[in-house]
Amino acid sequence: MISTATLTKLSKVVGPDRLKTDPVSLAAHSFDGYVAEGMPSAVVFPKTTAEVAHIMAIASDGKIPITARGSGTNLSGGAIPVQSGIVLCLTQMNQIIEISTADRYAIVQPGVVNADLQHALHPFNFFFPPDPSSYSVSTIGGNIAEDAGGPRCLKYGVTHDYILGLEVVLSSGKIVRLGSRNVKDVTGYRPAGLFCGSEGTLGIVTEATLKIVPMPKARRTAMICYADLDDTANTVVSVIGAGVIPAAMELMDNTVINLIEDATAVGLPRDVEGILLVDVDGSEGSVDCELAEIVAVAKANHATEIKVATTAAESDALWRGRRSVYGVLNRLSPATIVEDATVPVSKIPAMIRGCRAIALKHNITLSILGHAGDGNLHPCINTDSRNKSESHRVEAAIREIFQLAIELGGCLSGEHGIGLAKSRFLPMGMSADSIDLLSTIKRAIDPHNILNPGKFT
Amino acid sequence: MISTATLTKLSKVVGPDRLKTDPVSLAAHSFDGYVAEGMPSAVVFPKTTAEVAHIMAIASDGKIPITARGSGTNLSGGAIPVQSGIVLCLTQMNQIIEISTADRYAIVQPGVVNADLQHALHPFNFFFPPDPSSYSVSTIGGNIAEDAGGPRCLKYGVTHDYILGLEVVLSSGKIVRLGSRNVKDVTGYRPAGLFCGSEGTLGIVTEATLKIVPMPKARRTAMICYADLDDTANTVVSVIGAGVIPAAMELMDNTVINLIEDATAVGLPRDVEGILLVDVDGSEGSVDCELAEIVAVAKANHATEIKVATTAAESDALWRGRRSVYGVLNRLSPATIVEDATVPVSKIPAMIRGCRAIALKHNITLSILGHAGDGNLHPCINTDSRNKSESHRVEAAIREIFQLAIELGGCLSGEHGIGLAKSRFLPMGMSADSIDLLSTIKRAIDPHNILNPGKFT
Repeated sequence: MISTATLTKLSKVVGPDRLKTDPVSLAAHSFDGYVAEGMPSAVVFPKTTAEVAHIMAIASDGKIPITARGSGTNLSGGAIPVQSGIVLCLTQMNQIIEISTADRYAIVQPGVVNADLQHALHPFNFFFPPDPSSYSVSTIGGNIAEDAGGPRCLKYGVTHDYILGLEVVLSSGKIVRLGSRNVKDVTGYRPAGLFCGSEGTLGIVTEATLKIVPMPKARRTAMICYADLDDTANTVVSVIGAGVIPAAMELMDNTVINLIEDATAVGLPRDVEGILLVDVDGSEGSVDCELAEIVAVAKANHATEIKVATTAAESDALWRGRRSVYGVLNRLSPATIVEDATVPVSKIPAMIRGCRAIALKHNITLSILGHAGDGNLHPCINTDSRNKSESHRVEAAIREIFQLAIELGGCLSGEHGIGLAKSRFLPMGMSADSIDLLSTIKRAIDPHNILNPGKFT
Repeated sequence: MISTATLTKLSKVVGPDRLKTDPVSLAAHSFDGYVAEGMPSAVVFPKTTAEVAHIMAIASDGKIPITARGSGTNLSGGAIPVQSGIVLCLTQMNQIIEISTADRYAIVQPGVVNADLQHALHPFNFFFPPDPSSYSVSTIGGNIAEDAGGPRCLKYGVTHDYILGLEVVLSSGKIVRLGSRNVKDVTGYRPAGLFCGSEGTLGIVTEATLKIVPMPKARRTAMICYADLDDTANTVVSVIGAGVIPAAMELMDNTVINLIEDATAVGLPRDVEGILLVDVDGSEGSVDCELAEIVAVAKANHATEIKVATTAAESDALWRGRRSVYGVLNRLSPATIVEDATVPVSKIPAMIRGCRAIALKHNITLSILGHAGDGNLHPCINTDSRNKSESHRVEAAIREIFQLAIELGGCLSGEHGIGLAKSRFLPMGMSADSIDLLSTIKRAIDPHNILNPGKFT
């Protein structure tokens, strides 16, 4: 619990309207996109960096846990205040401060929604590459905290590849600025890289200078169908191995295809075992060449049907099914656990076969989709946490999936983060000395452990 | 001085042949590409990670400074052992451990020369984008320590964009592994990003897993000449602002052009005020379109001559002059100080005008070249440190150049690092609280300050 004196101090900083302690507000900020909850004692909505700094100084004085949050779409529990305290909701710091195309940057506050930044960049023919599935609601601050990826990160890289500079409020309440607005800057350590993906455990990002990219002039989308899931996966390995890097290369198995079709009737073929959804982009001259190379590889891997979209409307139609998948999965059961074990691309066929064998062994409902082109798979498990026997089987299966990923040279998370969901698995993926280095950094920067305590650190 | 007992311990780790204390060996490792010196007490040449860990444990026990080094091409003094101690020369850890094109990575030891990695990747039609001018001799370990850039980093990004995983020996002698061989990995903090650019002050990289990239199928080079340096710079601003990102876009002023021509007679026009050397790469379909856009912008900015190379041999001929520039400059005076103040691209015209005014004011020899497309300029100063009056004027000019860069929203270093050369300027580019964060990280990871002491930390 937070003392009345502390609440009074917080109220002086943000005013009574932007400090919430009523049960409904607290409950609304007790969860995110993961299957867990933690009730905060207060929620504050700062509008300026100075307000964040004041709030942090108050939290620091009282050693009160403080958990930052944007739209709460996190899939690994990073935004859940498991040790209660203050939730710092940054959705009202939502201004786009500057866009410069000649200098290739955009300066934004953390509460700017990813899609809103894309819309603002559109008239300039520029875009911000990270495109998590949550992009229509998730905030740039959340994208930075989790080092978000997305389908087109195959070609363009993930959030940390697009951070030029950050303004960060440290746990002491001090404000630091790291990096700059220059695409090349090697002044001192690169803590901008350290803060990205730190899940709110090292500081609060209050402003970000992001690298932006010219929109490619042309795009083609292909839907490629297979009678065999191994052929589907082998195509991915062969395409990337041949040095062709599509903008996106998504894989869906038969379970996912039929779930989408049940719910949306977008016209996916129900009888195929695997679909690849492939985007290529670049110049008008290059996209057709690249697509032809991919189609040739797909045919050599026994593709049964290939549909190519050449207009934006046709591309959108092909993508509609894929985009609907999380909504569809959420209709199936009280909870959907979307894992993101990631493996080197050459190991995708083995990883998919392994995941299916694990699901069979433990009798759980598992479907496979993912950003196959970069090895970032999303084994999705539909479950009901009230079914205790099933929950135990799900837990055992998830542990085996991560063990398999690590054995194949993979990692615990490609883009969702460790958060609550995977902190217990961290020793699988890192040595004790390596974990100790993370803890050393955490203790040095947040000595009282008030920033998002109870997560992976 | 290092005690005989310590030397005996070091000799037990690497054997007498790979421990040097003779004056010639010490002198040979007392300098790098910057204008300063520091004499070590011993030089060791480890061959394995285990040897590095043992050496580090010995240094840690004795609190002996330890400065890592590859080929010593550093331009900011990062490899100079200013507090003496041990120089850890990693050139014998020069094995390429694995190349996987399907998984888009190469695993290398730190002593692998950048060019040797490029040659090894060539048969697979892949490459490693960072291409510092020193690439024919500089090592990957040095490239990582300095977060090296190069001409084609305009399109492809710098070294930190290509680090998937690192094995690092900490000052305690403990070995940690960070990141993985996965292009997407958000497991814990991203200390791989922190170590890159840390100039050997946080740990010794003993193995690196690097992202590699398919070689583009086509390339064109254009040399564009101008009667006015403002027109030259304005072309850069207009091209990038229009969303055209060439692979490289180099600028040379009349002084540089004539110096190159004096020394090499490659056929550069002596009477022009500025030259842009532009590479575009991609598919056969895209390069001509992109080049046409650039040519149109150049003509609108009053270009006086445009030469286009369509074969590799013709491209190489156009690049020969630019590549020779550091050798040429070094013939002019006992020392060449190559600065790398960097500004947002839109500020390049103002930055160039400002640098020239500063040189006139202080009566120093300054020429301008640089990776203009990403704002990373290299004002080059020819000087003789024995001329004390000139040295004072050079120092004053350099300070004003950095002040100007910061005023224009730029930074102290685009790719050469802070090292010895710019540590005194750090407060110009960062607040006291931001510098304090760097120190906090340094103290936490290297509590006895034995790793490359006396540099920016």
